[in-house]
Parts: sequence; C-alpha cells; structure tokens
Amino acid sequence: MNNSQKNNITQFKGYVTRNDREKRQGHKGAVIWFTGLSASGKSTLAHHLEKRLYDMGYMTYVFDGDNVRHGLCCDLDFSDAGRSENVRRIGEMTKLFLDAGIMAIAAFIAPSKTDREKIKKLIGEKRFIEVFVDCPLNVCIMRDPKGLYKKALAGGINDFTGVSGKYDPPATPHITIKSHEEEVGSAVSRLIDLMEERGLIKKKTHLDNNPVIQNTV
Amino acid sequence: MNNSQKNNITQFKGYVTRNDREKRQGHKGAVIWFTGLSASGKSTLAHHLEKRLYDMGYMTYVFDGDNVRHGLCCDLDFSDAGRSENVRRIGEMTKLFLDAGIMAIAAFIAPSKTDREKIKKLIGEKRFIEVFVDCPLNVCIMRDPKGLYKKALAGGINDFTGVSGKYDPPATPHITIKSHEEEVGSAVSRLIDLMEERGLIKKKTHLDNNPVIQNTV
Repeated sequence: MNNSQKNNITQFKGYVTRNDREKRQGHKGAVIWFTGLSASGKSTLAHHLEKRLYDMGYMTYVFDGDNVRHGLCCDLDFSDAGRSENVRRIGEMTKLFLDAGIMAIAAFIAPSKTDREKIKKLIGEKRFIEVFVDCPLNVCIMRDPKGLYKKALAGGINDFTGVSGKYDPPATPHITIKSHEEEVGSAVSRLIDLMEERGLIKKKTHLDNNPVIQNTV
Repeated sequence: MNNSQKNNITQFKGYVTRNDREKRQGHKGAVIWFTGLSASGKSTLAHHLEKRLYDMGYMTYVFDGDNVRHGLCCDLDFSDAGRSENVRRIGEMTKLFLDAGIMAIAAFIAPSKTDREKIKKLIGEKRFIEVFVDCPLNVCIMRDPKGLYKKALAGGINDFTGVSGKYDPPATPHITIKSHEEEVGSAVSRLIDLMEERGLIKKKTHLDNNPVIQNTV
C-alpha cells in the first residue's frame, strides 16, 4: 500500500458501474415518462406498468405527485417556473435511478414541451420513453377524482393545466394511450412490447420465461 | 370490470411495496451518510462500502458531489442557505431510493448539525446511519487533492468548510472513522458489522454465504 492509498486521498469514480448492475439485474435502466392532463390516468398506468415489470423480475420505481411534490419539490409552486423546476429535478433524479440500473417510471403532467425535450436530452433518447396519455379534457373533467377541475373551473386554481394553464401535447411521443378507449392491461402490454423492441428488456418467447438482458443498448 | 376500472379513474398507491422489494432483494433499504471535512475521505469510504455491499449481492448507490452538485442541485450555491437546501434535497432523494429498497450511500460535508438532524428524522432512526469521517483539518489541508484548501486559505473561496465556513461535528454519530489512522478496508468492515448489528443486512456465519434478510427492522 503506497502513501496515497494509506492516506485515503485517491479519488474514486465508483467501483460499481451501471453496466455491472444491469448485467446482474437482467434489464436496462430506463426512464418511462407518462405525460397528460390531470386525471388522464398517468399514475394508474404507471403503477400497473410497475407491477407487470416487477412480476417479470425487474427493478422499478414509480415517481408521482404523492412521493415528490410533498418531498423533493415541496418548495415549488405550480407557476410555469415552479413546474419547470419540478420537471428538471425529477429528470435529474430519474437519471440517477437509471444510473443505478432501475426502471424509473415518472407520472407527471409536465405541460411544457420544452421541459420534456430537456429531459429527453438529459436522459438520452435510447433510455427514454415518452408516453402520451391522451384523454380528452371533457373526460378528465367528468372523472375529476380529487374535485380539482370543479375548483379550477370555478376560478379557484391558477395555472391548472387544461383550464387556466396550457398543455403542449407531445408531437412525436414514443407511444400514445387513449385511456378513455383502451383498457389498462392492454395499454401495459403495448408498453412492454415497446420496451422489448427498444432492447430495454428481453423479448420473451414461449420457451423462455427467465428474462435475461440483451447487450444491445 | 366496473365502470370505475374501465375509465381508469381508480387511485393507486402502488402495487409494489418496500417490503416486497426488500424481501426479494434480501436486505433492507437504508441511508448511510458520510459527513466530514472536504478531503476527509468520505467519497473514498462510500465507494469502498458500496463495492463491498455490491459484492455481497446487495443493491446500492452512491451519491456525492460528482453526481448531485452538477445535476439535481446545480442551481444551488455554497452559502448556508444553499447548503441547507442541498442537504434537504439529497435527504428527500435518498428517502426515495430507500423506499425502492436500495442502500443509498451519501458522501456530503453537510456542515450543519441541524440539517443532518432533519435528515435523520426524515429517514427515520432505524434506517439511518450517520458516519463521522473524523480527520483533522491539518491532514485534510495536506491532502488537498483538488487544491481547494490552498485557494480557500488564500481567501479565494467564501464559505469553505473548515477555513471560511463552520463545521459542526456530530455529537453522537453511529460510527466514527479516523481516516488518517484507520485503513479503508478496516473501516468498511466495521461499517458492515454495524449494518449487521442494526439488522439491515444478515449476519454472516462460516456456514452461510448467501445473505438472506432478517425481518426485524
């Protein structure tokens, strides 16, 4: 042991790489981002996708308003600037989950196309899936599980997306889910198919129920 | 399928729990926070601990200035307020990694005792290990791998911990490592022992090389 080692001053960039983790876990790290109006079904789809991936043996984690807006981003409001910073932080956090070899599933409105493009660039196209949950505003207003549309329509909420705030729909999402027409299970199956096509998880065959990674991404 | 399910409006809190993940992964999620002066050896110890845990089959991830200060916290300066917000965000993020069943290893100076106490409270005492890397200032100044002490001592850096900024040493850390006296391997072994004692990982015996979780935390 030389003096440098003995004094612990050597700089380490980490002994365990993303590649190590991915090989062991049998899948790629990735970020799957569900964007769409409030009550379009983003969180529901995200949690169903997580459950399916988890049952396949994969490492996953879902981020949504419940676990981010009250914690990491509790200091931010819903103004344009607050929303941009919210999306930026979530993007940076999911990038670290990806680096840990995990499939990070984010369910956030992210109304600004510019903000979403920044995330795509940050994560890298190969590891990013933009899911557009395309549900008409009138259906979302009918669902209104938290009574927020009612309040917003009465003028009680500033910057409420779709009512008093703008939503830029994605022009070229990787996949679109019309949650008012398609059942959850079918939508999740299409997502899994897409992840297979993208090489993030292994294609399953009738003879193969043990997912093993493809080293292609 | 009832109308509620068909319209996807049911609210989900998640199908996969931390308990599920921990059972499958064979260890508890936890946050291990290394605090100490710049150049005290925090990152080195963190990466060595990660390597050891990873080789035992566990899920780990290291957070340090390299992957956080340029990303999630790139908007923050090194003033007292900036440092507090930096520590708060890292605390919230490590809490989500913990919830994903991962051992989140953080290597940050976190000079304020108040800030560190907040993190401990946020994470919960049972899942939190505060590691004090107790290296005398004069040794850190001698090491000075990035030349920052030289710059700070010449008056070129405001709020540089130990020189122009204050460091509150922990009064009751869970473990103390005197990095100028103890070798890295020995310190990591003591950390592993502590994690075993705390029930975060299984105690290993000569007959047992396959870590399996203890359901005690």
